[in-house]
Amino acid sequence: MISAGTTLQTMRERRPLVHQITNYVVMNETANATLAIGALPVMAHAREEMEEMVQIASALVINIGTLSERWIESMLLAGKAAGARPIPVVLDPVGVGATAYRTDTARRILGEVDITVLRGNAGEVATLVGAAAEVRGVESMSTGIDPAELARAAARSLGVIASVTGPVDHVSDGDRVLAVSNGDALLATVTGTGCMSSALTACFLAAKPDEPLEAAAEALAVFGVAAEDAAAGAAGPGTFHARLYDALYALDPATLDGRTRIEEL
Amino acid sequence: MISAGTTLQTMRERRPLVHQITNYVVMNETANATLAIGALPVMAHAREEMEEMVQIASALVINIGTLSERWIESMLLAGKAAGARPIPVVLDPVGVGATAYRTDTARRILGEVDITVLRGNAGEVATLVGAAAEVRGVESMSTGIDPAELARAAARSLGVIASVTGPVDHVSDGDRVLAVSNGDALLATVTGTGCMSSALTACFLAAKPDEPLEAAAEALAVFGVAAEDAAAGAAGPGTFHARLYDALYALDPATLDGRTRIEEL
Amino acid sequence: MISAGTTLQTMRERRPLVHQITNYVVMNETANATLAIGALPVMAHAREEMEEMVQIASALVINIGTLSERWIESMLLAGKAAGARPIPVVLDPVGVGATAYRTDTARRILGEVDITVLRGNAGEVATLVGAAAEVRGVESMSTGIDPAELARAAARSLGVIASVTGPVDHVSDGDRVLAVSNGDALLATVTGTGCMSSALTACFLAAKPDEPLEAAAEALAVFGVAAEDAAAGAAGPGTFHARLYDALYALDPATLDGRTRIEEL
Repeated sequence: MISAGTTLQTMRERRPLVHQITNYVVMNETANATLAIGALPVMAHAREEMEEMVQIASALVINIGTLSERWIESMLLAGKAAGARPIPVVLDPVGVGATAYRTDTARRILGEVDITVLRGNAGEVATLVGAAAEVRGVESMSTGIDPAELARAAARSLGVIASVTGPVDHVSDGDRVLAVSNGDALLATVTGTGCMSSALTACFLAAKPDEPLEAAAEALAVFGVAAEDAAAGAAGPGTFHARLYDALYALDPATLDGRTRIEEL
Repeated sequence: MISAGTTLQTMRERRPLVHQITNYVVMNETANATLAIGALPVMAHAREEMEEMVQIASALVINIGTLSERWIESMLLAGKAAGARPIPVVLDPVGVGATAYRTDTARRILGEVDITVLRGNAGEVATLVGAAAEVRGVESMSTGIDPAELARAAARSLGVIASVTGPVDHVSDGDRVLAVSNGDALLATVTGTGCMSSALTACFLAAKPDEPLEAAAEALAVFGVAAEDAAAGAAGPGTFHARLYDALYALDPATLDGRTRIEEL
Repeated sequence: MISAGTTLQTMRERRPLVHQITNYVVMNETANATLAIGALPVMAHAREEMEEMVQIASALVINIGTLSERWIESMLLAGKAAGARPIPVVLDPVGVGATAYRTDTARRILGEVDITVLRGNAGEVATLVGAAAEVRGVESMSTGIDPAELARAAARSLGVIASVTGPVDHVSDGDRVLAVSNGDALLATVTGTGCMSSALTACFLAAKPDEPLEAAAEALAVFGVAAEDAAAGAAGPGTFHARLYDALYALDPATLDGRTRIEEL
């Protein structure tokens, strides 16, 4: 059942610890978004502590925005430990398609780790679907394909919940597709808002692990509602960014379901 | 003598360079807090420049929030160079108790480096005291022990000034205990505010190196006063965070002592 | 021809991708400044993807603020790939003069990479000029030399456009010198504003690669105008910082040339 308000309330009561192996650019921002929504972030990447940290976490985020060999080892170690428990794992394939290194790394993680939700933009997800389905050309897919169909195809071919964000977000388990139309254009003017949506997806999965399709869509809707609140009164990207944490923190579970726009296609 | 206003004024006149080896999540934030209070930050971690950088610094912060082997080497190199000069060293044992790697690293630094002030929350400090005193179980200590006694026990067993932050902060040299009751609940909603308090502690130690107990307590009181100012008018964690730098920058040494709440127990 | 408004408009139409290998402290901030002005940032440092990433970029920033051996390798790889295309390269020699490691690294990059613009403060640039010209002592040069002459000397001896920022900025190709007097004192209270000016320089070079002297001066003038707008109404460093992105985003190309203060000496 879809109820972002109920999931938010459950999450805030549990305060799940969300382990994030993410890029240098957005670490502070995703940690603060996690805190503002009501969960607890822990940012750790050392191989020596990966398996132990995963044992105390309720969800894991793997974000490949700034890669290097040692970090990839840690992502794989943490991802496998998460699969063994199991806890939900979100993969954010930042920049996939831009370089072979990113594409190969995302594919390797998808191959070796049990990913619950793949959260990316249309170009990133299309690259990974294209790779799996022998379809060539990111641009043609990302512009030429219907995003709902892209999400469904990604979910089927990659065996994940595919969460494709854009002006309207589309989340699919390969069968059903949920479209989320909350949000604001200012999100695209601040770096790391996609990464934040991946972190919030992990927070919601921790609260509702048995319904990952619904949880992933609810997380995007909630982030979109907060963006709408933050945009009202913001003078530009900088004040919008500060107000975004205020808005996440101020979200009221009791009235949230009247504001989320989640539609099953 | 305790006078946060006097120490702040001295610090702003000297503009001490504070070398910070800190975690990726909060580097920007602790650098900005250092600038806002009136000191100069330098963030550097390469082994090749550790000893040289320490030579021009007036205080050193070692923060283990995001660890890896090479960074630990640099922390030890810098810490030993700081001890040889000597300049004050603050250790922030972020996440100690969560993994053996963090606990072992903090213990190793405490063993090899002359730490002036250990600044952590009750759970982190209790872990390190427990380790030294053969007491098991972080949770029992962090919840079961009086924080003033925890600070005193940590200072005695670890040979440091122990600065235990929480709703009320407790700073001890093993004999005296100073309680600081400035602050605001919004501090807990922004990541890195603990790390900022460690950075500000180093700024104050640089201005008052001969009275580290007083300097450490004054730094926490000053940070708490700034948090009180930032919270007045903040709409949530994001605007509070931005206003916190404004408040640090605007602190008036002449009126500060009338606002700090530092009590000797 | 100098017209910051025209260059800004061209840049926003092209939305150049600006590859930034920069320090951990300011990655989020320079990415957000790049987005706010209207270009697209990509932050990547892995050796495995350096050459491929440079192929899709329109400009490269190399910033040595937090160094380590592997990052230096990546800087050199990316810099050489940029020279082979060619695309403009901005070097920001953060902290040069503070340690031999930084000075040696900046010199090595200047020796092996075709740097278009060297953007630093007077002390940093003087260190590099002093090194080339056998002049000893950073402090004497940085305080004793006229900044216009410093810029000219740096441009000549290092074979770059030298962009020396300070209360008044001076940009020179070794012959002409442009002085830029936009800006606000609050810029010095926020970490990373120098790094932001280097990122914006790269954005402007991407839009006007054939006139790097003019582009570099225009970038500083535009950043200064934005700082003036951000300072009006800011309560201190924190709100100034948030408003700085708002101001960059709101810059109007049509009225900009009436506000920039660029003078040829």
